Amino acid sequence: MGGLDAVFRPRSVAVVGASTRPGKLGHEILRNLLEAGFGGEVYPVNPKADEILGVRCYRSVSEVPGPVDLAVMVIPARLVPGAVEEAAARGARGFVVVSGGFRESGPEGAELERRLVEAVRGAGGRLVGPNCQGVANPHAGLCATWPLVTRRGRVAVVSQSGTVAAFLATSLEEHGVGMSKLAALGNKADVDEVDVLEFLAGDPETEVVALYVEGVAGGRGRDLMEAVRRCVEAGKAVVALKAGRTEAGSRAVASHTGSVAGAAEVYEAAFRQAGAIPASSLEEMLDAAEALAAHPPMRGDSVAVVTSSGGGGILAVDALESRGLRAAELSGETLAALRESLPGYAVVGNPLDLTGSATAADYDAALAALSRDPGVDGILAIFGDPIPGAFEVVSRWREGLGGRPLVAAYLGGGEVQAAELGKFRGAGIPVFPTPERAAAALAALRDVGRGSA
Amino acid sequence: MGGLDAVFRPRSVAVVGASTRPGKLGHEILRNLLEAGFGGEVYPVNPKADEILGVRCYRSVSEVPGPVDLAVMVIPARLVPGAVEEAAARGARGFVVVSGGFRESGPEGAELERRLVEAVRGAGGRLVGPNCQGVANPHAGLCATWPLVTRRGRVAVVSQSGTVAAFLATSLEEHGVGMSKLAALGNKADVDEVDVLEFLAGDPETEVVALYVEGVAGGRGRDLMEAVRRCVEAGKAVVALKAGRTEAGSRAVASHTGSVAGAAEVYEAAFRQAGAIPASSLEEMLDAAEALAAHPPMRGDSVAVVTSSGGGGILAVDALESRGLRAAELSGETLAALRESLPGYAVVGNPLDLTGSATAADYDAALAALSRDPGVDGILAIFGDPIPGAFEVVSRWREGLGGRPLVAAYLGGGEVQAAELGKFRGAGIPVFPTPERAAAALAALRDVGRGSA
Repeated sequence: MGGLDAVFRPRSVAVVGASTRPGKLGHEILRNLLEAGFGGEVYPVNPKADEILGVRCYRSVSEVPGPVDLAVMVIPARLVPGAVEEAAARGARGFVVVSGGFRESGPEGAELERRLVEAVRGAGGRLVGPNCQGVANPHAGLCATWPLVTRRGRVAVVSQSGTVAAFLATSLEEHGVGMSKLAALGNKADVDEVDVLEFLAGDPETEVVALYVEGVAGGRGRDLMEAVRRCVEAGKAVVALKAGRTEAGSRAVASHTGSVAGAAEVYEAAFRQAGAIPASSLEEMLDAAEALAAHPPMRGDSVAVVTSSGGGGILAVDALESRGLRAAELSGETLAALRESLPGYAVVGNPLDLTGSATAADYDAALAALSRDPGVDGILAIFGDPIPGAFEVVSRWREGLGGRPLVAAYLGGGEVQAAELGKFRGAGIPVFPTPERAAAALAALRDVGRGSA
Repeated sequence: MGGLDAVFRPRSVAVVGASTRPGKLGHEILRNLLEAGFGGEVYPVNPKADEILGVRCYRSVSEVPGPVDLAVMVIPARLVPGAVEEAAARGARGFVVVSGGFRESGPEGAELERRLVEAVRGAGGRLVGPNCQGVANPHAGLCATWPLVTRRGRVAVVSQSGTVAAFLATSLEEHGVGMSKLAALGNKADVDEVDVLEFLAGDPETEVVALYVEGVAGGRGRDLMEAVRRCVEAGKAVVALKAGRTEAGSRAVASHTGSVAGAAEVYEAAFRQAGAIPASSLEEMLDAAEALAAHPPMRGDSVAVVTSSGGGGILAVDALESRGLRAAELSGETLAALRESLPGYAVVGNPLDLTGSATAADYDAALAALSRDPGVDGILAIFGDPIPGAFEVVSRWREGLGGRPLVAAYLGGGEVQAAELGKFRGAGIPVFPTPERAAAALAALRDVGRGSA
């Protein structure tokens, strides 16, 4: 088992430093591994415990009865290099070192990190970390990170920052959008963004990559863009957020990670050139990833807005326009069909205002007419009132638009909205909380459509 | 009972068109009035029902036994002018007409609207609507709108759009931030933004106004800015979102409301000149309103960032910088105090990175040191991990910073985060979901600080 397979698709995992105490990372990671439904063996290792969370515990990795593919380490830094050698002797080729106390803590730590890398290379293995928040592969029931995430899907999260990875993972899970892989890279002593992107380019479970970059090692910038391009060429959409975009932010990157931040504009242009979609905030990256996972790309700039809220429609048009999209000019035929099929209260145009009297049936009729208009590249449906049945309409029409995206926003709908959102999330269809965020998601779908045109 | 008092502080309310059927607006509004804990009399009016939701129902307003201050109408448009006269005869001076079918529906509706206004003026009353989503005053237990909102607080919501009002109201409620008043103005046949702002300028329960404007009647622009200024001079913070900011959006305003949209830049400059804070999206308006309701203004541009997430800290600095704020330069004394009081894993600087090992006690020590630094105008605390006790630290220190704001972001913290957020919301302290949104909230606090400097 070579390369990153031992990290993402292990058959067995040892947790070195498993803890009996809830709240400690060595406990949480073990619990998440057990609760995520991992199919292979899980071996807690702790010299002072016989059993943790009902699972037999071993004094050292050497005592584990079966072979070990992946060793997750949550022990003091000075013990890690030795534990790596021990685990390698039991067959481990994947190493995830959660422990801090390495390069980030000073010269002694840097020396420990050097010895750690030497031990991993000596074993022919690969190392994620140290000082990292771990990895996950929901498709294998593998959650060697925290908090617990289990929903299977198409989005891979790659992030130097553990918190950013956790934010993306928990937000995706909460919105019903599943993940394919998660890698929180920490100090990147061995595996970095380039390695993970290369792995993901060949990963059939990944269709979208959310990439958060603080900085890359000197000379590795070109490789990063190459790896992004390889993902894009393999049909994956990549959305990338570069932190340290301002001068002050860039200084913060240098002090946080010791890596070179690089000018924001340079990164952004390079990402675009490699076919990735640059995001300008965490939330924008999240929204784009959700949209890209759920919807087809948009092949043009023209969006039809269907709304029960006049105000929501105006805000949507503002936001579309400010992102280089535009309100589609509906054909005479479409306008006639809309007038024919909609009740008198509807204000036919674009935005198409179904008004506060709107029902799910009105949205249905509107989408039927819009679906036949070749001048419409995508649809933004705003549910701005308690509209029971919103989910059923969207889930029916999203497949019926000839490969054009139908993105939904739901706001102001109280209890009915909460019930409808539950249905959307159960089906993994993202719904945005404002027209502006839905418009930004459509812009990401247009960007990816352009790249693949 | 004159002016808008009859609308916002009635002693009795008649719901003309109260319905027996759940889901109908005439039912929902009655239910919300009853559930919000209104202290006065509520009279359902419906010729076909004896009782609705356990409350005695009357065939017409004329049959209501006591005097009526406020009449809420949810009946067909053609019946409204007559019902207004009837209600006026029972003493009503406040009128909220939810029903559509007036000016927005064509010439016949416009004529009905003219007659409606005539009837209201004839009675010496004031009218909100028609075609509107109603009003609320949680301090009086008055919820003549939907969805149900009851939390008392300091934020007034003024919006032509019902959906925007509902979005703000439900989001504020969900985040534990209460409202003082809500007015969803609809067609604005009588009461418009100017009238409500003038009322709010003298409303002791209002400290923050969230104002959503699509367009104003010709010649009313100057009055609007005057009314904004009057609120600001009365010590209220006003955050304003102008819809129809792009050319296409502005055309959408014209078609939606028939009112003049006006150039975005003109509005924005005028809002700033009147002392308001312009917002560029719904979410930004919401976040600013929450921050303004909970925190003191910021008297300068320098922010200290305390974080458990290095990545979160970098994103915060980027966002602060891009909004014209900056990372404060900490004094030598502060740096020494931080080094003294924090554990070895903390990376002392700004951002102050407490790392993934951070505990609530570390934040406590950090805030103690930062509170004594006169070069710090505000603090952004990022909890980027499961950190139990986050709420207690923030709630202790927010009063101990000599009138400087302490704004919190919490992300990536799983179950612990959910529990902590529950405590923040219970106390009405807003927490932002990303460092970027927290930074934007601080920018609003700086803007209001500038205005009042």
